Amino acid sequence: MAQAADGALSLSLPAKSAIVFPVCVYVYAAFFALLPCVQFTYIHTRPNPLAVVNAQSKTLSKLVRQLKDGCRKDEEPKESTLCGLNPCLKCLQPDILYHLGLDTETTDFPKVFGDVRFVCMGGTPGRMENFAYYLMQEIGLKINAATKLRDMAEGGRRFSMFKVGPVLCASHGMGCPSISILLHELIKTMHHAKCQDPVFIRIGTCGGIGVDPGTVVISSEAVDGRLNPAHEILVQGISVQHASQLDEGLAEEIKSCHDPCTDNHEVIIGRTLCTQDFYEGQARLDGAFCEYTLEAKKTYLEELQNQQVKNIEMESLAFAALTSRANIRSAVVCVAILNRLNGDQIKTPHEVLAKWEKRPQVLVARYIRKILYFNENDSDSEPLEEEECEETPEKTRASQGGAGDTQKAPEVEAE
Amino acid sequence: MAQAADGALSLSLPAKSAIVFPVCVYVYAAFFALLPCVQFTYIHTRPNPLAVVNAQSKTLSKLVRQLKDGCRKDEEPKESTLCGLNPCLKCLQPDILYHLGLDTETTDFPKVFGDVRFVCMGGTPGRMENFAYYLMQEIGLKINAATKLRDMAEGGRRFSMFKVGPVLCASHGMGCPSISILLHELIKTMHHAKCQDPVFIRIGTCGGIGVDPGTVVISSEAVDGRLNPAHEILVQGISVQHASQLDEGLAEEIKSCHDPCTDNHEVIIGRTLCTQDFYEGQARLDGAFCEYTLEAKKTYLEELQNQQVKNIEMESLAFAALTSRANIRSAVVCVAILNRLNGDQIKTPHEVLAKWEKRPQVLVARYIRKILYFNENDSDSEPLEEEECEETPEKTRASQGGAGDTQKAPEVEAE
Repeated sequence: MAQAADGALSLSLPAKSAIVFPVCVYVYAAFFALLPCVQFTYIHTRPNPLAVVNAQSKTLSKLVRQLKDGCRKDEEPKESTLCGLNPCLKCLQPDILYHLGLDTETTDFPKVFGDVRFVCMGGTPGRMENFAYYLMQEIGLKINAATKLRDMAEGGRRFSMFKVGPVLCASHGMGCPSISILLHELIKTMHHAKCQDPVFIRIGTCGGIGVDPGTVVISSEAVDGRLNPAHEILVQGISVQHASQLDEGLAEEIKSCHDPCTDNHEVIIGRTLCTQDFYEGQARLDGAFCEYTLEAKKTYLEELQNQQVKNIEMESLAFAALTSRANIRSAVVCVAILNRLNGDQIKTPHEVLAKWEKRPQVLVARYIRKILYFNENDSDSEPLEEEECEETPEKTRASQGGAGDTQKAPEVEAE
Repeated sequence: MAQAADGALSLSLPAKSAIVFPVCVYVYAAFFALLPCVQFTYIHTRPNPLAVVNAQSKTLSKLVRQLKDGCRKDEEPKESTLCGLNPCLKCLQPDILYHLGLDTETTDFPKVFGDVRFVCMGGTPGRMENFAYYLMQEIGLKINAATKLRDMAEGGRRFSMFKVGPVLCASHGMGCPSISILLHELIKTMHHAKCQDPVFIRIGTCGGIGVDPGTVVISSEAVDGRLNPAHEILVQGISVQHASQLDEGLAEEIKSCHDPCTDNHEVIIGRTLCTQDFYEGQARLDGAFCEYTLEAKKTYLEELQNQQVKNIEMESLAFAALTSRANIRSAVVCVAILNRLNGDQIKTPHEVLAKWEKRPQVLVARYIRKILYFNENDSDSEPLEEEECEETPEKTRASQGGAGDTQKAPEVEAE
């Protein structure tokens, strides 16, 4: 560990980061005392890119700030930043999050989840586990070679949940009822852990409306089958509707991480139709039941297209409504696996689908990396120079897996 | 294998089965020729109970019947018995069941699924895999010691599905949208496989209304939050409602498999409230959001009780509506893990919950065993004598796990 820390801090830092040099000795001496607070130790960085220097500068500044401030417990936030939550929560001692298999008696939520800044959600356990490992690599985290990520929701047997530093990755199953259970319990998790401004992002697959298969669609808002932007639930027999708006700024920020030079696909923002079933609710002709004609289906899908609906999926209404009720910034990022104007059945080979499914993950990983290492409070740093766009096989490959990306973050190791 | 078959057929058969003796030699000689048709070979039976003798009589009769009829391909059913299905299905070549990871081009549905008579569904993959192994034991099937049950829906990555002889066991996730996807694809599976009169049973957990935790509730019908017995879906923007009645006769048949002498719990039939979410939809006070009072919750739950609602869960509306549309007999059998009139949080220890979760499985396994071995076309067999009720620890233990049950079926081995 000493060697690792030494390796990081003995690197030569070029001109732009020279301003932080005077504090280096001070920081070096204080580094180990601070470990419990900063959570990570640098082990090595790649040689000399400006982006890495920026990141190092920021980390050094943080170390100095933390050293000055100390690690006083009484400065920890007293509450999460979430709003509008159930006033009864404070009376639940313990609060049992049944479907996550967690409770506030046996888990110290602030300690375990207090550093969470991003909650990423996707349909299947396997996809979210893969995403967690991919993200670990992309944000430069490592775990001990003798360990692996633990499914923290295993006890609940319904969802999977993996934690990679400040990112939670959870599977949500299919449909609004399923994701609503997860959201209630994850929002309570954020509350109990006193998390500050967590961002929720759903990544997944969808049917496209008039878009090429493989296109990534970021939702501007979620609408129901009548194009109503609200999630309806029955509460004690009475219909209650909650607005299903999503954060426009966040959608734009995520879209800005798309690199048209290296990415071999489009990323667009548009309205998302959220349905309560996959077959009849989406006007498919290939369900077990179908009581409408091909013409009726076509008319409906064309009407969706005219109304700027770009894709169809099954979770965004509950996701948008529940996150916005808690004042959580949230986004839905899905890849279209077919163009519904051309058919219903998903005939694309598995290997192509697997490649497409990575696209929302790659985009969201870039966004998270950018926020963690390059954007935050970075008003004094100069923007990275824009490189001229030139499409090469090397670049395209890098954009798929993230490896070799010029904005690569420094690698760090979890405590 | 020869030894196994020999072991079964060389058992002495008492008076009641003597009528089948004359055909034994004939059957013995024909046994191996028939193996591809009958699918299983007997390996051994438990000594001498009347129930086993009945089962053997039936199996021998079947063998004789099949021997007489031959195994002519042209006598296989040309269509499934399901009704009201999508007329477009015949045009789908292949039909891709995306979420099951199956298609009619690469899977021979009649060959793989043609013998299915029961489809059992439950929430989690683990529960359904355990149920499949339990059922295998209870209906007397064995698989080669070098093999294990394969998750036949693994390719779809959404559900799990295991086949145990004539029984399919599938996980359905949480909520109506999730189970509706599975049902569309399972109903299409039955259709493509030309299955005859399959029975669908959902087993699961629920909240009880005025019933003791641990009670098994068989649903008479499913109702929504307004107590309307219909499943509503939006089809091309228009609300469509499908009746959510369940098969009363089937509910009674399953209930009749309850043994009040050995089972240490009640089994009741009642109305089931199906909701679209676990927290606000079920008037809980422990969700992330709660915009009603304790009094309002109490009033609603008491109204449910007055309206004969016995339990609350999240899948029965879609399950009842989709199965009844296809003319499939179906039942919902759930164990109450708490009495909602007494609280919201599930505080029961895991080991007790695990014990309770087995109760619907034990009951349904008894029903399936009864249908497979004791009831069908059995008009000439006498009913088993009713034993006098006497509760002993031994009996109670037997009823939990099924081991030692007096209605044990003969063990057979899959081909």
